[in-house]
Amino acid sequence: MAQDKLYARRRLESLGYPLPPFLHVTDREEVTGFQDTHGYPLTAKAPRGGYDGRGVWRLDDPEEVDRLLEQAPDGLIVEPTLSILAELSVLVVRSTNGERVIYPAVETVQRGAMCREILAPAGVSPEIAARAAAIAVDVAEDINATGVMALELFLTPDGLLINELALRPHNSGHFTIEGCATSQFEQHLRAILGLPLGLPSLIAPAVATVNVVGGKSGTDPARHLPDALAVPGAHVHLYGKQARPGRKLGHVTVCGQDPEPVLAAARLAVEALEGDVR
Amino acid sequence: MAQDKLYARRRLESLGYPLPPFLHVTDREEVTGFQDTHGYPLTAKAPRGGYDGRGVWRLDDPEEVDRLLEQAPDGLIVEPTLSILAELSVLVVRSTNGERVIYPAVETVQRGAMCREILAPAGVSPEIAARAAAIAVDVAEDINATGVMALELFLTPDGLLINELALRPHNSGHFTIEGCATSQFEQHLRAILGLPLGLPSLIAPAVATVNVVGGKSGTDPARHLPDALAVPGAHVHLYGKQARPGRKLGHVTVCGQDPEPVLAAARLAVEALEGDVR
Repeated sequence: MAQDKLYARRRLESLGYPLPPFLHVTDREEVTGFQDTHGYPLTAKAPRGGYDGRGVWRLDDPEEVDRLLEQAPDGLIVEPTLSILAELSVLVVRSTNGERVIYPAVETVQRGAMCREILAPAGVSPEIAARAAAIAVDVAEDINATGVMALELFLTPDGLLINELALRPHNSGHFTIEGCATSQFEQHLRAILGLPLGLPSLIAPAVATVNVVGGKSGTDPARHLPDALAVPGAHVHLYGKQARPGRKLGHVTVCGQDPEPVLAAARLAVEALEGDVR
Repeated sequence: MAQDKLYARRRLESLGYPLPPFLHVTDREEVTGFQDTHGYPLTAKAPRGGYDGRGVWRLDDPEEVDRLLEQAPDGLIVEPTLSILAELSVLVVRSTNGERVIYPAVETVQRGAMCREILAPAGVSPEIAARAAAIAVDVAEDINATGVMALELFLTPDGLLINELALRPHNSGHFTIEGCATSQFEQHLRAILGLPLGLPSLIAPAVATVNVVGGKSGTDPARHLPDALAVPGAHVHLYGKQARPGRKLGHVTVCGQDPEPVLAAARLAVEALEGDVR
């Protein structure tokens, strides 16, 4: 469940969860049948090893299918392009002694198949948020997850569909470090050590996290740290990774009363960090 | 100013700050004159090296004076027993580039000459809190402090008096780790590195920190960690120090809406940690 997207999808499908249509393909003919039904562009995903937009491709025509399949030893998972109203993520934590907590559902914003922004709580109706939480809890119970589990969902005109499952502390949960009474990392340790779980509640009405992504020049965002720290309330995290284009190098979290100013402040700090990078 | 209490007191007195009466004594005759004016019990402090109640003694009679002076190469600072309504602490942070922030004044509760509880904000009038902050800011400016400075004050029937000055992140500032937008430790680093300072604001209306102190049996409080973590909202810090009677071994912070339940929860977790220790 943690490492093989195809296995995870098939298991979740067999358990009756709502998923986008998908097909595992190993040659072009199989793709042709799928695209006859759904049309281009399609999304293709490597069953193993993908993260941060790696292992995810947009397919616009049959030639791209051939090229990708040549480099895909495990084949590809293809999905149609969905009409997505919002993307959500829910963290569920289950401990070895049977305790469970659920963090507030968050809204994630992707660019280039990579999560760029996280807003907590999600800007969706309480009913949608509750439904997303219920699905995530059911999945965690069904697969007997231990520790932090993140379930990413698409909100579509037809309802919620499961996008991805991560059995680990997750990028969409970094907002919990400053934004919640207990961070996902502390919670994960409590869970796997069988210690009582902490409160998952938000410490402020609105929390935004924006990821710092490496740009073309490869400049280290730490060069711009003073500018980012000058943004009031900006909690700056740099991972000490070498700067490479498209690599997640850090994130900034801001907590406050309203979503708009909080998100604006986090973006401002991230723009400063990315500076001449982008 | 950081290491010699006698030097600090004399300098603060010469700058016109309100201090309790004090006298530096090296023999019993000098103490006799001071106690003629103020009476027993007196408080005696070592000019150097004291912390967490070490280097502070209560003097009840002249024999104790003799005994202490024999072991006091730098002499002793003696103070009268004051009528104390409350003890306050104010953290001021000054950066190498001239920025300055002030944390909300907190109330500290001592037992056995050691700080046991910290409540933020202090339960005093806004006027008293503002006056304490003003004194702390003036001291920081006058002595050109860099980094985190903690000023401890007594609230007496005659007004505020300076108790101790600490030129470092301080035990009375541990509440800032979870209780404020920026912890005193991050703030200290920002300050001495010349980076912009962070917001010192509280993240909740009430924050309480209670220290974990070693008891007679020398039992490690980590043995009781599960019981402490079961207290909702308890942020447990254990310092990994060997348990010894009277040694500060950790602290617990709880954030919430009202001082009473927040303090009660922190105490509950600390009682669990001290468990059979005390």
